[in-house]
Amino acid sequence: VVRISNSRSKGRLLARRRAILRAAATAFRARGIAAIGMREIADAAELSPANLYYYFKSKDELVYFCQDHSLDRMLEVVDAPAPKAKSADRLRAVIEAQLALMLDELDGAAAHLEVDALPERLREKIVAKRDRYERAVRAIVEAGIKKREFAKQDATLVTRALLGALNWTARWYRPGGRTSPAAVSRAFSDYLVRGLLK
Amino acid sequence: VVRISNSRSKGRLLARRRAILRAAATAFRARGIAAIGMREIADAAELSPANLYYYFKSKDELVYFCQDHSLDRMLEVVDAPAPKAKSADRLRAVIEAQLALMLDELDGAAAHLEVDALPERLREKIVAKRDRYERAVRAIVEAGIKKREFAKQDATLVTRALLGALNWTARWYRPGGRTSPAAVSRAFSDYLVRGLLK
Repeated sequence: VVRISNSRSKGRLLARRRAILRAAATAFRARGIAAIGMREIADAAELSPANLYYYFKSKDELVYFCQDHSLDRMLEVVDAPAPKAKSADRLRAVIEAQLALMLDELDGAAAHLEVDALPERLREKIVAKRDRYERAVRAIVEAGIKKREFAKQDATLVTRALLGALNWTARWYRPGGRTSPAAVSRAFSDYLVRGLLK
Repeated sequence: VVRISNSRSKGRLLARRRAILRAAATAFRARGIAAIGMREIADAAELSPANLYYYFKSKDELVYFCQDHSLDRMLEVVDAPAPKAKSADRLRAVIEAQLALMLDELDGAAAHLEVDALPERLREKIVAKRDRYERAVRAIVEAGIKKREFAKQDATLVTRALLGALNWTARWYRPGGRTSPAAVSRAFSDYLVRGLLK
């Protein structure tokens, strides 16, 4: 067995898979994940079905990859070491990164919320990763409270309020509309960080 | 045709319908609205199917009534005249009322968010009413900004952040768990109002 680890072609594969996700996400958004099959995804991505199957063996694999990939990128930001940063600045960076991913970059990483679309085994993996993300965000809130940068409050519940505000954008935000992702990002990070301060 | 407008029996009918909703909501929450039929609702409410049909002609009618009734109660609170109240206090009352409805009283007024479960014609009525509610909440935020009680900010976007945090509770809150509705209500209203202040 020869292991090929050509990072340039791996990069190309990833870029191609993300382009397919972007096309699929637009279709998911318009009609719901459940209503879209591999044929519609191939059409949206302007690929032949055979070509699409080269990148993703099934819709489950595609949805899973989308969710998993989004969560990895969110975890990268929230786990980045920042020993001297203020809690408010760290949290702002996390909020902005999640919104960039949800509203803009992957055009529907929002799919990371639609775990019901996945079969049990894959769903459990995504839910575990999402829980890890929530714990990491909460840890920033807790550190801010401990350092008295934030007011004393229930870190678990305010973290849920904060993430709820971000997640809910999947229900109302429409790419290409009047409101830019940057405007949402600014208003949300100002508001959601200010609420924590003393 | 004799019109009976006996308000006592109307009150009884409403109470009975709400008790059925509460039972249905528990089933909806556990398995999703789509998966539950009139038979399961009858079982959950400990009624015979014939008896259930006396109160609701169809599942659509039941889901519509639940959503419509919840929104009416939310609108009552947000529309209550309060000429001298501070914007922060008005908003706090609105947040607490919506959470009481979502987490506690109707045990799943959360259904008001699942508009996809409704046929087109009914869905449009609910969406219009929900939009009216959002506008009323935004008007409180705008008034607070105008009176300089709140910081200058994008009222539309912060209202969406605020309502998103509330709506998202439908995705994670489990009645009867460790966290009381009162604790959520306190933490959320403190946090979501504080973020608006200067």
